[in-house]
Amino acid sequence: MEDKYRPIGVFDSGLGGLTVVKDLLACLPNEDIVFFGDTARVPYGGKSRETITAYVREDIDFLLTHHVKAVMIACNTADSMARETVTPDYTVPLVGVVRPAAKQAALVTENRRVGVIGTKATVESRAYETSMAEIAPDVQVFPVACPLLVPLVEEGRFHRGDAVVDRVLSDYLAPLREKKVDTLILGCTHYPLLYDSIAAIMPETHLICSGSASTEALINTLRERDLLNDGQTHGSIQYYVSDAPARFAENGGKFIGREIHGSVSLVSLKKPAKA
Amino acid sequence: MEDKYRPIGVFDSGLGGLTVVKDLLACLPNEDIVFFGDTARVPYGGKSRETITAYVREDIDFLLTHHVKAVMIACNTADSMARETVTPDYTVPLVGVVRPAAKQAALVTENRRVGVIGTKATVESRAYETSMAEIAPDVQVFPVACPLLVPLVEEGRFHRGDAVVDRVLSDYLAPLREKKVDTLILGCTHYPLLYDSIAAIMPETHLICSGSASTEALINTLRERDLLNDGQTHGSIQYYVSDAPARFAENGGKFIGREIHGSVSLVSLKKPAKA
Repeated sequence: MEDKYRPIGVFDSGLGGLTVVKDLLACLPNEDIVFFGDTARVPYGGKSRETITAYVREDIDFLLTHHVKAVMIACNTADSMARETVTPDYTVPLVGVVRPAAKQAALVTENRRVGVIGTKATVESRAYETSMAEIAPDVQVFPVACPLLVPLVEEGRFHRGDAVVDRVLSDYLAPLREKKVDTLILGCTHYPLLYDSIAAIMPETHLICSGSASTEALINTLRERDLLNDGQTHGSIQYYVSDAPARFAENGGKFIGREIHGSVSLVSLKKPAKA
Repeated sequence: MEDKYRPIGVFDSGLGGLTVVKDLLACLPNEDIVFFGDTARVPYGGKSRETITAYVREDIDFLLTHHVKAVMIACNTADSMARETVTPDYTVPLVGVVRPAAKQAALVTENRRVGVIGTKATVESRAYETSMAEIAPDVQVFPVACPLLVPLVEEGRFHRGDAVVDRVLSDYLAPLREKKVDTLILGCTHYPLLYDSIAAIMPETHLICSGSASTEALINTLRERDLLNDGQTHGSIQYYVSDAPARFAENGGKFIGREIHGSVSLVSLKKPAKA
């Protein structure tokens, strides 16, 4: 098979990466996609760089068994903590979510003050500051760790008007409103579900989601390497998870914006123990 | 070494089990303790029975490398989902937290209506209903899954008067107040930190924590087998975690009620891959 007809691999620690898949499906409808969600070890956001890096290698290695032509790291934590470290070990391109979002923020900010909300690990990694320093050194980045947002979204509490969500968001966003950022990066692939609630609290602020920015980066990467699928048939999507496939199928719909049809397969990343 | 002088093993998915250790230290000051927290895979509460059971076996196997004389499963999720399945595979006694708490609740309830709050997995397992049916079949059990409480406690948001905590707790406890339970089991080893906030919402209700009930069960088990340490020296405690030992040492203090002195060691549960 020509390389361009191989699928695109996408992974996340759990469900969040499906918000990126949503954008991929809209922009690249004829590509085949293999998605992996590491639901046996979710979440990554509070874990250490060493552990996250080990998990990311296993996630990528799994996708490579499906002969993917490129890997989309649809998880800000994984991208921030591990992409740079693992990149030299792979020949397929690894496209992340951090740099594309930083680039888009640099384009739209007028007062050169950009906020970032993300997991503890993403904020600790300083990945957004590092990317922005390379892309637009005059832009100041103000990061805030929001460890409760992933659990809230995973529990289905993301609707505008939910008293707990509004209260938690107000607390987290208060310092960014004080800093008068005019642009806010939703630096976690779970956060697009909170878009309306965040927009209600910061109505004058440009909100940047990882999905659309990184889809554009992926398209550029594939085009440069002549890897865009030029077929005319509609692409397929296969889902794999490391735990609880039924729960993934049930809850994934709200992330991807449509029902999860077809099967979700359970896989074990565990290598066989020595006899 | 005589068996009675071997240490007691205790494990949890993360920090919560330290609330049980707090009770152990108070009641059994001359016992040595080896604690393991599976922080690389925390939390267990939203994962499947198969995955939790596999993790529990690895946790116990790790403790056995330290020649423990008994294992305290200081995690309601692990106990509910896996203890019965794995018990036949071990010769050391495995003491859980569910049955002792159910027993204590049966003793104190006057109206025979007992509420249980716990993780999604604990509630799905129906472990409290099963235990209560054996202990006191006339007691009705009303379980409520509270998936946001562990993330809140892990983030340090457990103080009475925290607006988010009070709101989340009010939502979760409302159906139990309606059911007029006179006794509530805090069915997760993280929840003792929420004791004051829960007591403020349900002031007339007996609150049962897993720690003291299960410590009593452990003492009985050790006594029956002549395994109580009768030495006069003060016991030691060793901590092991699968990720981020510094963070464990920093945050563990609020669970165990004293600073975590001495070292916290990082271990990998991963078996070496086949060559």
